[in-house]
Order: sequence, then C-alpha cells, then structure tokens
Amino acid sequence: MKILITGGAGFLGARLARTLLKTRPVTRLVLADLFPPPADLLNDARVEARTGALLEQCAALSHERFDGVFHLASAVSAECEADFELGLKSNLDTTRALLDALRAAGNAPRFVFASSVAVYGSDAALPLPAVVRDDTLPTPQSSYGIHKFIIEQLVADYTRKGYIDGRSARLMTVSVRPGKPNGAASSFLSGIIREPLAGLAAACPVSADAEVAVSSPARTIDGLITVFEASRDAFGGRTALNLPALTVRVQDMLDALEALGGRAARARVRFEPDANIARIVGGWPARFEAGRSIRLGLQADADFRSIVQQYVTDHPESITTRRQA
Amino acid sequence: MKILITGGAGFLGARLARTLLKTRPVTRLVLADLFPPPADLLNDARVEARTGALLEQCAALSHERFDGVFHLASAVSAECEADFELGLKSNLDTTRALLDALRAAGNAPRFVFASSVAVYGSDAALPLPAVVRDDTLPTPQSSYGIHKFIIEQLVADYTRKGYIDGRSARLMTVSVRPGKPNGAASSFLSGIIREPLAGLAAACPVSADAEVAVSSPARTIDGLITVFEASRDAFGGRTALNLPALTVRVQDMLDALEALGGRAARARVRFEPDANIARIVGGWPARFEAGRSIRLGLQADADFRSIVQQYVTDHPESITTRRQA
Repeated sequence: MKILITGGAGFLGARLARTLLKTRPVTRLVLADLFPPPADLLNDARVEARTGALLEQCAALSHERFDGVFHLASAVSAECEADFELGLKSNLDTTRALLDALRAAGNAPRFVFASSVAVYGSDAALPLPAVVRDDTLPTPQSSYGIHKFIIEQLVADYTRKGYIDGRSARLMTVSVRPGKPNGAASSFLSGIIREPLAGLAAACPVSADAEVAVSSPARTIDGLITVFEASRDAFGGRTALNLPALTVRVQDMLDALEALGGRAARARVRFEPDANIARIVGGWPARFEAGRSIRLGLQADADFRSIVQQYVTDHPESITTRRQA
Repeated sequence: MKILITGGAGFLGARLARTLLKTRPVTRLVLADLFPPPADLLNDARVEARTGALLEQCAALSHERFDGVFHLASAVSAECEADFELGLKSNLDTTRALLDALRAAGNAPRFVFASSVAVYGSDAALPLPAVVRDDTLPTPQSSYGIHKFIIEQLVADYTRKGYIDGRSARLMTVSVRPGKPNGAASSFLSGIIREPLAGLAAACPVSADAEVAVSSPARTIDGLITVFEASRDAFGGRTALNLPALTVRVQDMLDALEALGGRAARARVRFEPDANIARIVGGWPARFEAGRSIRLGLQADADFRSIVQQYVTDHPESITTRRQA
C-alpha cells in the first residue's frame, strides 16, 4: 500500500506516519512537508521525504498513483489572518492543484482531508446552537475556517465525479500537544498541562469554568485512519463529519494535572485573564453530538485524566514533575 | 452611483439593469458579459457594455471604483457537469479574480452575489428536511451548486476582512422566463406556461402533484436590490440568505395557465414523464421558511396566477393565445 501524507513532518502527520508504518501493510510512505520529518521516520526504508512547498510538488504527483492520501498540510489560523494571500495560496490553490494532480493520475485514490472544528463560529444572523451536530451549518469566522470549509466542498465534488474517493473529517482541538507554545489561541489548552509537567510555569487566559472540546492525539489519529478505512456506505454521503470531542471545563483539566503531576505541577498554573483569547475560545463550540463518527465506532476520550496519562506515557522525556513533586 | 453587473446581458442581468436605470440614481452602469446586452440598454447613454470573458476583464477592474457590484455571471449547471474544468474556471477562478480586483481597487464596494437554491440537495448522510430554512446545511449535489456555495464562503471572508461589503442571496427557480427552452432540468417550469401562451405545444416531464419552489422575475430582481440596499445590520451576518419562494404544485401552474390563457392554452400541455428529470426536480427543496428575507420586507409571489399575469404583461409580444382562445 502506497500512501501520501501532506504535512507529514508535523506533529499529527508524523504520528499518523508512525501508526500506519507500525500497524498497516504500508510499502511506501511519502511525507510531503515544508520541513523534513523526524529522524526515526527518515530512517525507515519505506519512507520517502519530499521537502518543499506542496504546490511545487503537485505537477509531479499527477504521474504517480497512491492508494491513499491524507491531506494534512495547511497554513494555520494565525498565518491566514496575518497574510490573506498566503492563506489562499497555501490552502486553496495548493489543494486545488493536489486534487487536480490526483484526478490526472486517474486511479481515484482514497483521500482523507483533515478539516477542522474551525469551520464553526457564531455569525450575527446564525448563532451557534448549544450542541453542534453533523448537520449544523458552519459559518466560519476566520480565513482558515473558510478555507477548510471550501476544501470540504471541493473534496465532495471531486468525489462525486469519481476523481478521488474523498472523505473530510473535522479535527477537534488536539490536547496535549508536545513541543513549545505557539501563537494559536488554543495553545494554552496544551500548555497548561505540558509546561507544569516539565517543571515550567504556565498561564491560563480563560476562567476555570470555561468549557472546551478536545481530543487526544491518539484518538485524533484513530479518527483519521477509521475514516480512511471506512466503506463509502459506512462513511455516509460526501459531507464532512465531526470527529468525537470530549467536553471539559478548564477546571477538569487542572484536576487531571494535579492527579497525575501532583500539587507542585498544579501550582505552576496561574490564571492571567486575556479578554481577547477568552472571546476567541468562547466562540468555539464546546459540545458536539458526533453521530456519524459514533456510528463508525469512534468515541471521544473517556476523560481528561486519560488524556494527560497518554501524554505522560508518550513523552516521558518531557516529564520532570513526578520526580520533583 | 456607478454600478457593475456581471452577466449583465442575460435575462436577469438585463432586467436588473433596466430596473436600476429606471428607479435608482445610476450615473454609470457597466454590463460585463460574454454577449452584448439588448439594444435598449446599449442605447442608454449611462450604459457601457464590456463584452468578453470576465476573467480577462478583472485586471482592469482593479483600477476602477464601483459603488456597487451585482455578480450574476456564471457557467450554468449543465455546462459545469459537462466540462468540469470550464466550470471551475468560469465560476471559481473568475470570481476569485473579481474579488481580488475589487480588493485592489480599495473602496470596499457593496457586492451582491447571486447564489442559487442549487446549493441544496440530499446527501446520503444528510437528507434534506421537509422545510429548508436559512440555517439548513447545504449539501450541493452538482458542481454548479458546489461553486455557488464556495463563492458564498469567499464573499463572507472578503467581507469580514473589509475588502468588500458582500451579501450572498440564493435565487429560487425563476418562472416564467421568456425566450426559448434550454437544456436545464428546470426549463419546463417556464416552458409549460410560455409555450402554450405562444400557441405552441409543451411537454411536462413530472406529474401534476409535483411541488416546486419558484419566484417571478420581478420578485427576484426586487430581492437582489433589497439585499443590495439593506444595511449590514439588517442583512444580518455574512451568511447567505434564501430569497422567498412560492411553493406550487404543477397542477396549480396549469390551473393558472388555463385561467389566463384559456382552455386552448391548457390543452397544449401534455404529460410526458421523464424519470431522469423527475428525479432531479424531486431532489430540489420545494418548501422554504425564508426568515431573513421576510425580515428584510421581501415576500414570495402571492400565487402562480399573478406570476403568469406578470409574464403576460411584460411580454405581450409573446402571447398569441388570448386572441385564439
């Protein structure tokens, strides 16, 4: 099985690559990304890294046949807001070129598009309902969300025409992400766990009773692979589905931190209200009824404690607190 | 007031042009279309026809400031299904170029996008509800519908960024259209009235109890102008709204034909079931709750008889039946 992952050197792309190599009969795995993938992937004989802008790689892709494509590459939210044209080029133009290359290749590969919960937002005419379902109308409030929603439409139409066998799955906010804080408004949803466990201070910009919808890295990758392997009938239609989300209060997250990292870890988080971030986060849907995902056998994480446990198990090198606590 | 109408030589574009020239303080009206507009418009000193592909005209538009733009130009449904690339180029690429030109012009003109009820359809995962509302999730089942829905998203985002003051309004099936039958599945919804009134035979491919949602040309133009003139607050958000629709059974349409054209006219319509057209038409939503349009003061046509009367009044040259009946 020959697979292409765009954005294959990123956190989710690399994790998806490792899972596929370990558990599926992959003979060739192409990782396209602006950056080279981590060393363990580079050292796998089945892996081929293609480093550079995806847009430049698409012409060559039209002469190549993949059994499956996971399209994760994307300019992120903050980039798209800062540079409108870069966002359109990185997201829309690049995806159009990718879809046209796959169409030219002619074998209608299975294609999973990593869409995002960012398609949702409150529009003045159409405020978000309390619970978001698969048939809730997205009214994106950022260029990034607009791009994701537009690409969902293209994936649906290239699929209807038989050019690809496409499926769009909307990813939830992933927590706990390893690595460093980034500029995303959601960065703190990993930071308030990751930093204290590493012995570092962390700021929480929203109140303890703020509700958010999250998914662990492992469940997120499970979701992408399940959607990839589903029959078309089981996936159901060509409309994007929402992956399952665990709804938690920030307080629940901090309780889980304390349970696994001790009081010392919990004490490293201080509340530093940021009205701007609170407004952005408050605009995200916190409760989902992910009916289609459930019917595919997917489930949200059981609780936030298991999410923290997953992070501790997966990143032992990043944990200092248990020795110190 | 300087206005641009793309698709300005078509039936709706020309009618919109005439209405604006007659009732609004228009000083300059640019009609961009593949074809030249009708003579009465060409002879108006305020009108400038720009004939040729809109995509080629966009670079020049970036140096020009309009107070308002009505974007009606579009490759239609059958064209998009027959030629996938032509559809993408005529609809998506051209609209992107138009929006970028207006952005470059820098005066954030008011912009009305003529979207379409074709954004709706039944997806296997998400069948259409019995009544379509403004917050019903569109799941387009044609490339044309996909393009319209994508453009709605672009209009919303260019508006959010302040590059245009955009509003998307979804047009219903317009009946009675003058002229000749075309290849559209909806063609008969004008043909079964227009042809008999002109003394010609007409075939009805669906059963008498089929329900459809229609709007007269005059109400459709009213809708576009009302949306153009609404304040942003009154329009409400940046999501597309559905213009009002009159729900009628084909039998109601034929009764109206007989009332105004006599029995002889009614007798010229014969039922010739066409399973393919019946399936397409059956997939269209027939009932709407157009809350946002109603709040703007718009209303559906009162009944189909008034729609036929409008056609008879507007196109006396096309009516032979009353003399004959």
